[in-house]
Amino acid sequence: MPVPDIDQFHAISISALAHKLAAEGRSIIHMEFGQPSTGAPKEAIERAQHILATDPMGYWESQPLKERIARHYRETYGVTVQSEQVILTCGASPALVLALTSCFVPGQRIALARPGYVAYRNTLRTLHMVPVEIPCGEAERFQLTAKAVAELEPAPDGLIIASPANPTGTILPDSELQAIIDVCKARGIRIVSDEIYHGLSYGEPAHSVLEHDPHALVVNSFSKYFSMAPWRLGWLIVPSDKIDAARARMGNLFLTPSALSQHAGLVAFDCRQELNSHIETYRRNRDLLLEALPALGLTHIAPPDGAFYIYADIGHLTEDSLSFCRKLLLETGVTTAPGVDFDPLHGNRFIRFSFALSTDLIEEAIRRLKTWFNVQNA
Amino acid sequence: MPVPDIDQFHAISISALAHKLAAEGRSIIHMEFGQPSTGAPKEAIERAQHILATDPMGYWESQPLKERIARHYRETYGVTVQSEQVILTCGASPALVLALTSCFVPGQRIALARPGYVAYRNTLRTLHMVPVEIPCGEAERFQLTAKAVAELEPAPDGLIIASPANPTGTILPDSELQAIIDVCKARGIRIVSDEIYHGLSYGEPAHSVLEHDPHALVVNSFSKYFSMAPWRLGWLIVPSDKIDAARARMGNLFLTPSALSQHAGLVAFDCRQELNSHIETYRRNRDLLLEALPALGLTHIAPPDGAFYIYADIGHLTEDSLSFCRKLLLETGVTTAPGVDFDPLHGNRFIRFSFALSTDLIEEAIRRLKTWFNVQNA
Repeated sequence: MPVPDIDQFHAISISALAHKLAAEGRSIIHMEFGQPSTGAPKEAIERAQHILATDPMGYWESQPLKERIARHYRETYGVTVQSEQVILTCGASPALVLALTSCFVPGQRIALARPGYVAYRNTLRTLHMVPVEIPCGEAERFQLTAKAVAELEPAPDGLIIASPANPTGTILPDSELQAIIDVCKARGIRIVSDEIYHGLSYGEPAHSVLEHDPHALVVNSFSKYFSMAPWRLGWLIVPSDKIDAARARMGNLFLTPSALSQHAGLVAFDCRQELNSHIETYRRNRDLLLEALPALGLTHIAPPDGAFYIYADIGHLTEDSLSFCRKLLLETGVTTAPGVDFDPLHGNRFIRFSFALSTDLIEEAIRRLKTWFNVQNA
Repeated sequence: MPVPDIDQFHAISISALAHKLAAEGRSIIHMEFGQPSTGAPKEAIERAQHILATDPMGYWESQPLKERIARHYRETYGVTVQSEQVILTCGASPALVLALTSCFVPGQRIALARPGYVAYRNTLRTLHMVPVEIPCGEAERFQLTAKAVAELEPAPDGLIIASPANPTGTILPDSELQAIIDVCKARGIRIVSDEIYHGLSYGEPAHSVLEHDPHALVVNSFSKYFSMAPWRLGWLIVPSDKIDAARARMGNLFLTPSALSQHAGLVAFDCRQELNSHIETYRRNRDLLLEALPALGLTHIAPPDGAFYIYADIGHLTEDSLSFCRKLLLETGVTTAPGVDFDPLHGNRFIRFSFALSTDLIEEAIRRLKTWFNVQNA
């Protein structure tokens, strides 16, 4: 058995080129990564400053933060979560490693939507688990359906759900989520739900898998709604039968998350006004892009219900999204992520825009894109 | 194949009891965990404060920090390391996950010293690799020998080296390190060296495996010498043939380490005066304990060449180190780690003291231990 060959994110190479161009004096608009350009909430930063000035800190697992997260599930979803079920992690990515290694073994088959976040597939392969990709097209708004999960033969051992999804921002309607969970229960499929974009929705809020399935594992983090991506703080909710397994893996594989980030994260939970103002910015950006992009010939888009992404079909212009992103960057300074990061089969025909920027920058990006796409379409 | 049952650290349960007693008003001296009680260097904290005040930050991989680490290998060991070989991680623990998954696959056999840091064994088992424990007794100063590695049949696929070691603090003499590397070369064994306690030695400094073997992987972090354990920042040095594999795993499994920690870590490299003053404290503490413990009947100790641990044989008093640690804590307030965390076979007869505390506290601990051990020995 060879060590699996794992892809790097192609968006990183595009981003590196963008930084090189910026260093040469070019004006760059970064729409390639899924991170808010805003920093952590003001009061969270103040808390961190206070801790830095007064506390040498140590390895730490913040009980108040675990209790605050448990309370969040009661208040937001009406779900009872004990603080013991909360594992604090160094972000959503290692939370997924904990979830997968606590539930599955090498050779087991884990289903997931295609397109989807590239790290799902790559983390599964690193752990010698087998990703079973479910093709989700524009007709399904790039999301899983109960029907598709029911038709998988043989039944997979696990299923990764992401709603709102990356790269599309689409949200599973609660009825479909419930139907998927019913299929998983009937077929003995353990669910891992990535709810990292919860809190960021433009219509109906997303429902947590835990509302319907107490046996599911839920990954989340402070990187998106809480605008604290570089603080590397996340969490995993585990059912009671997986607490010991997940805690043991956290201690051995990672020890603890940053103590400072835990202090700041606890405060961030009560910075709703500042954080919700970011959503209003994203909503404006989304509306501007959804109006502008079709006029540029980008008509095949699933309107993002949540998150801060637009996944756009560029198949009428290219079959090589990586080269397309590079050309777009070199000629406009607008940096995007190539679809090949999210879909190894059809991603050559897509690009992803992240709109977690100021509205001024989005307006400038639209101006540049208009000129450029008019030439491409001519 | 079942999901492996992984032990939690027993020291965590002892520590939890200590915190409960402290909350009840008891005076506790924490010698159970391997973390400096000093905080990050003053100038590193100032840098973090400045960044917090001025920079919203983003996902980041600090090129200056990678170059500073590469320079550290040139200056400290006379070894050429390119900055591309440096992978910045969220601590040494995830660096080990990257190293193991980049080089080995489930079912492969990885040798390591027993006693040793519990996470080696547990991380290997989580990844479905097979730990091959090499018994290392007092005669070998609890360290690996070339002879023992040469005698393993069949040859393992990998070897984890730790020098200075946890829980003993013993350092491999350079001649023995070289001999072990020669055996590994001859037998095709890939080396992963955990050099997290480098910089903390009381006689000859430890040598890096990279001085003799450019194909080895080296794990290190800011948690020990740099006194930044709760900042969760570490690194992995990979040989050129593993750069792509390790970088891809870092991006997919972890993304990046904390941006703030990277800023602070770069400054910490130039805080030698403050950091070296900690070593002088540890040296005093070590000398005090090495003088005091034999008088308490703890005569079987490998004098720690480095790190900040003393691993002491208590087999004349108990065969249950976990209960012993609990009793010692309850009756004296001195918190230690049970040997069962480090050695599943003989650890029931050992405890580990961490002396990364102020000398005042060490003196107070010795006073309490004296009274208590006199009763035990009576």
